[in-house]
Order: sequence, then C-alpha cells, then structure tokens
Amino acid sequence: MPDHVTVAVDAGGADLGPAEVAAGAAIAAERGVRVLLFGDASRIDSVPAGVEVVDAPLSIAKEADPARAVRGNPESSIVQAVRAVADGRADAFVSGGSTGAALAAGLFTLKRGRGIHRPALALPIPVPGAPVTLLDVGANVEVRDDHLVQFAFMGAAFAQTVLGVERPRVALLSNGEEPTKGTETVVAAHAEIARRAQGSPLFEFVGNVEGTDLVTGAADVVVTDGFTGNVALKLVEGVSQMMIGAIRDVATSTPRAKAGGLLLRPALRGFRDEIDPEGPGGAYLLGLRRLGVVPHGRFTRFGFSQAILLAARGVSGDVVGRTHGALQTAGALRARPGAAGGESPQRAGSSGDDSAPSDSSSTVSAP
Amino acid sequence: MPDHVTVAVDAGGADLGPAEVAAGAAIAAERGVRVLLFGDASRIDSVPAGVEVVDAPLSIAKEADPARAVRGNPESSIVQAVRAVADGRADAFVSGGSTGAALAAGLFTLKRGRGIHRPALALPIPVPGAPVTLLDVGANVEVRDDHLVQFAFMGAAFAQTVLGVERPRVALLSNGEEPTKGTETVVAAHAEIARRAQGSPLFEFVGNVEGTDLVTGAADVVVTDGFTGNVALKLVEGVSQMMIGAIRDVATSTPRAKAGGLLLRPALRGFRDEIDPEGPGGAYLLGLRRLGVVPHGRFTRFGFSQAILLAARGVSGDVVGRTHGALQTAGALRARPGAAGGESPQRAGSSGDDSAPSDSSSTVSAP
Repeated sequence: MPDHVTVAVDAGGADLGPAEVAAGAAIAAERGVRVLLFGDASRIDSVPAGVEVVDAPLSIAKEADPARAVRGNPESSIVQAVRAVADGRADAFVSGGSTGAALAAGLFTLKRGRGIHRPALALPIPVPGAPVTLLDVGANVEVRDDHLVQFAFMGAAFAQTVLGVERPRVALLSNGEEPTKGTETVVAAHAEIARRAQGSPLFEFVGNVEGTDLVTGAADVVVTDGFTGNVALKLVEGVSQMMIGAIRDVATSTPRAKAGGLLLRPALRGFRDEIDPEGPGGAYLLGLRRLGVVPHGRFTRFGFSQAILLAARGVSGDVVGRTHGALQTAGALRARPGAAGGESPQRAGSSGDDSAPSDSSSTVSAP
Repeated sequence: MPDHVTVAVDAGGADLGPAEVAAGAAIAAERGVRVLLFGDASRIDSVPAGVEVVDAPLSIAKEADPARAVRGNPESSIVQAVRAVADGRADAFVSGGSTGAALAAGLFTLKRGRGIHRPALALPIPVPGAPVTLLDVGANVEVRDDHLVQFAFMGAAFAQTVLGVERPRVALLSNGEEPTKGTETVVAAHAEIARRAQGSPLFEFVGNVEGTDLVTGAADVVVTDGFTGNVALKLVEGVSQMMIGAIRDVATSTPRAKAGGLLLRPALRGFRDEIDPEGPGGAYLLGLRRLGVVPHGRFTRFGFSQAILLAARGVSGDVVGRTHGALQTAGALRARPGAAGGESPQRAGSSGDDSAPSDSSSTVSAP
C-alpha cells in the first residue's frame, strides 16, 4: 500500500451524504492513506483516525453549468479539494458526483500536464474476467488525431500504475479491425499510435477493435473520442442492466423458474461482485498535473474507499510522471504552447503557461 | 400479407448454403410472396412452389473489396438479384452475408432515391419488450447534419411500414439529453430535425437519447452516424453475449446452481426468442429507389423467411414512397443534384442523375 500519500476528498456530491464518504475515507486511512476531507462538517458525527475534515458546506455538484459554478464558488468543497492538491497539501483528489465540476476545477486550478493537449476521462469497466479501461468517456466530444495518440499513452500509464497491468494491450475503437477502417481522425490516429508505440516499454498497440471486443478481453485499454466513448459506456451499463432485469423477470415468471432462481442466487453473487461498478472506484481524470478520480454520486463507502486507495496507488506509481515520460520518449508531447486551437476551458482558467514545469506547487486559484 | 410482391433473393453468402435460403424462401412463398432466387442451382435439390431459381453460382460475398467485386462481376448472384429489382422483375432484394456487397450493388445498380443524400443501414435490435431500430449502423462513417435529418425520416418510414409502429418516436443518439449536447454535427441535426418534424404525421421527435436509452424503450428509432452506430450495434451484441455466457458459467458452477439452471431453462426459452436476431430479418438498406435487406450470413431458414416477408411488407407499405413524401413535405430533400460533395461511391456507379424520377424501371447496369 502507498506510503505517505495524501488524498483530498470532496464529499459534496455523494447521494448518501458526507458521513458515508467519511466512512469510505476511514477504510482508506486504515490502509495507510492520509485523507483531507472537504464537506459539511456538521453532517459528519465522528471523524475517523487518519482523516482531517475541513468544513466546506457549499456543494456545486448539482449545478447545470459546472465551469461557471467552479469559477464563481472558490469556497465550494470541490474547488477547495482541488486547490489543496494545487497547493501541495495533497497529492491527488477524489470528488464524488459531478464529473463536469471535477473536470472544470481540475482544468482551472491544477491545469493540464506539460505538453498534454487535453485531459481525458478514463473508466475501468468491470467485465467478468476481462476488465477494460475505456477513454475518453466524455471530456472531449470532438478530438483530433494527436489527442487520441496522447490518450493511448495516458490510458496505458494508468492501467500500469493504478490497475497493475504490466504491459497493457492498447486498442483503438473503430468500425472494423483493418487500419483503414474508421473516420479520417481514427485512421490517422491508428497510423500515429502504431508508429510511436513501436518499441515502447509502456504498452503494446494491438490495433483497431470493434464494439464487440470491448467486452471480450481483446485489449486492456480502449481509446476513443469522448462522444463515442460516452455512448459506449452508457450502452454497456444499459445492456447489462437490461439483461439482469430480463433474467430476473424470467426467474420469477413461473413457480418452477422461481425455484431455479433461488437455487442460482448464491452462485450469482460472485458474478454481481465481478461487475460491481464500485470496484474500480469511478472515472479517472488523466492529463492534469495531478490525478483526479470521480466516483459515481450513488456509490457507497466501498466505492469511495476504492477511489481513494486507487488514487493513492496512482500517486505512488507516478502515473502523471510516467505518462509524461512515455509521451516525451515517443515524441508525442505538444510541441508549441499555442499550436492547438479551440481549447477555451483551459485558456479561460488562467494564462496558458504550457511551458511551466509539471509541478503543482505553484498555486493557481480559480478566478 | 402482401399481395403480388416479388422479392429477388441472393443465396450466395449464406453460411448454411443455398438450400437453406431456398427453405426460407419456401416459408415466405407459402405466405404469398413470389421469390426469384439467385444462387448455385446445383446445390438446391427441390425448388419450392412459388420460388423461381436462377442459376448464379458465382458469389462475391467473401471479397475484401465489395465495390470492386460488384463492378467486376455482373454475373454474380448479388448483382443479378439487384439487377432484377432495377429491371422491374422484382420489387425488393434480400442478400445474405455481405453488407458491403449489397450496399455497393444497391448504389451502383438501383441508385439512391431522388433527393436522398446517402443510403443508410437500419438494424431493428431485438430488445425484450422495447425493440428499437438503430440507423446508420455502418454505411456512412462520416456524416453531415442534413444526412442525419434524412436518416430520421427514413428510419421513421421504415418503422411504420415494415415494423408496424403507428407513429414512431424518433431520437438522436448523443452524450446527453440536452439539445446542446453532442458534436457540432449532432447539435445542428437536433435543431433541424426538431424544426422539420414539427406537425409531421410520420413521427414524433423525442430529442436526444444517451447510450443507456437504446435499450430502455425511450424511442422506436435511434439516429446516429455510421461509425457510432456500428460501434453501438456491436457493443449491444457483445454485451448480450457476454452476459449470457457469464450466466451460463454461473449456472454450471456448482451442483446447486446446475439444478437451478435446469429449472430455469424452459422459462429462458421465451427470453431467447425475444432477443433472437433472426426475428427482424437483418439489416435494412434504406434510401435506395427500392428496399434491400441483408440477413446475417449465419441465419437459418427462419431468418431468411423473415427478411423476405418483411421486405415484402416494406414494398406493400411503400416505404420508399413514404420516405420520399415525408421528406418532400418537410422540405428535407436534397435540393441541387451537385450540392453534396465527396460521394464518390455513388458517382462512380453511374452518372449522377439525381433529378431522375424515383422509378427503378430504367435499367442501370454495373460498369
């Protein structure tokens, strides 16, 4: 387990309230992670050992315009948690509930890693026997080919340091396996990833995979744009739920089926654990100067503890540094600070000092 | 059941051979559909009543470059079947196995409907209790907003005439329900569909849906580009198979679970029938001057009979005419023949006479 790692946790967006998040923090603290918890202190009865609570009753997790909410509310729990990381008081942040707010706070306050075009949201999908990390699942609706190239390196460094996959197999999502299949952007990204991954100790590029292969163990990391990734992610969740519901209906349809369902139930429990979305801890925000994790707002203490523990593992394994190092070796870092256009959220956050060192100790407060 | 409808069937690409396709044709013929069957006559022992077999032993279903194969092999079973429709000897075509060859043959020989930008592949996904037609599932990897607008009308006319949905609810696939969510193309298409669908007797536009909603009955028709649609379709198939496999594994994991599985089996049969991909008959090629259907190559006689029967229903219900009429009323037909760029497959097929009447009697042979 990681030593001397501090994780800043925003308890503002959790459906079950800050006390449940504190209980999750307690589990992580027992395993040696220090936790700085930002939330409504009046709703947390007992503060667990190893956890420091900072009173931050204002939550912006339900705001419709996250970027605006982040800028306008520097005292909110998410902005305070992210600022703790920017200040060096913590090494990574965990924020339950609003991915948009976490993304905006991360961009404005922590900023992109040096040479990174765009941060991406990576979600480890719990598939029985063949877990797969999909990115981007929604941070960038439109991407360029060089964005997808960086996502491949970011996803690989994440799978290696956080999920413990020694040399991840990375694939590109497309409508066919041939390198010529896909949109112009996908075809160009395929060629670029193949070229830059050659001889990479970080990952193996296994080429294009189709939708089917997302759940067949064909790859450890699957790269796509945030539009397709978001549709794919929600489809996996939807179809899984639909199948579980349909089989539940079948298992209560006749007395005979009911008896069968009862006999099956204990064996099904292991399967349900394998596909539990709380296991991987949530969506990971990659490409910032520090790691961020966004558990789903409905998660229990278990999901929050996983998010904190896996964030700490990402810090210990230096996912940010490894991503940067691998991109540098492959020559895939953004060369000129002003080269990439249309990245207004980043620019709006603060002046675009892409050439600044990958070091979060310089405080950047939200305007 | 449809009267006096003739369907041209290409038996070339079927995994189980032309005799299985002929058996499917026999089922359709018993229900009053005339079938012109193109395939290797030496492999069909007995010709069923109502079915005429035309010997066409050459199949191009396994060719890597379908467009080239279609152009170079006018005697192949698929090109002959499509030409029968172009000549007026048949009203629709069914071709098992190669979607690419069917698309190329349809474009070159039948051509696009008048005012249609691009044909699209529509697949009725068999979801228990909430079947949904997804289009495009792969004909157009990149689309413009006005393509998506036409897909909405094409999908609605299809759901109405072929699937019998009185006033289909049509949705646009995106990464969020708000009209502002999605790529620039999706946002523009949303506004256009909303405007043109107002007061349409053909369908109701229910706005954006997310990946989850593809299987929750939120819409009867879901519109997307061919890249996202292809990924989504294969993901639905992949996740369904994965879940069925995982539950089968669970149901054989312990003696107790085995007993439960045996008791459940009869009740599961109905569920399996509901999600049987052979039920809807395959993928439908919309936007040509006549209807085409592509059953999966692995389908049995049941799937082929469904494809033929549903194609005949599309003819009786005039899916092509209804699509054209609805697009005309909505002002969504392609205005100037030369306005849309980059449509080389269509242009390569023959001269671009987009202003010609929507009438397949003018023979256009593949070059």
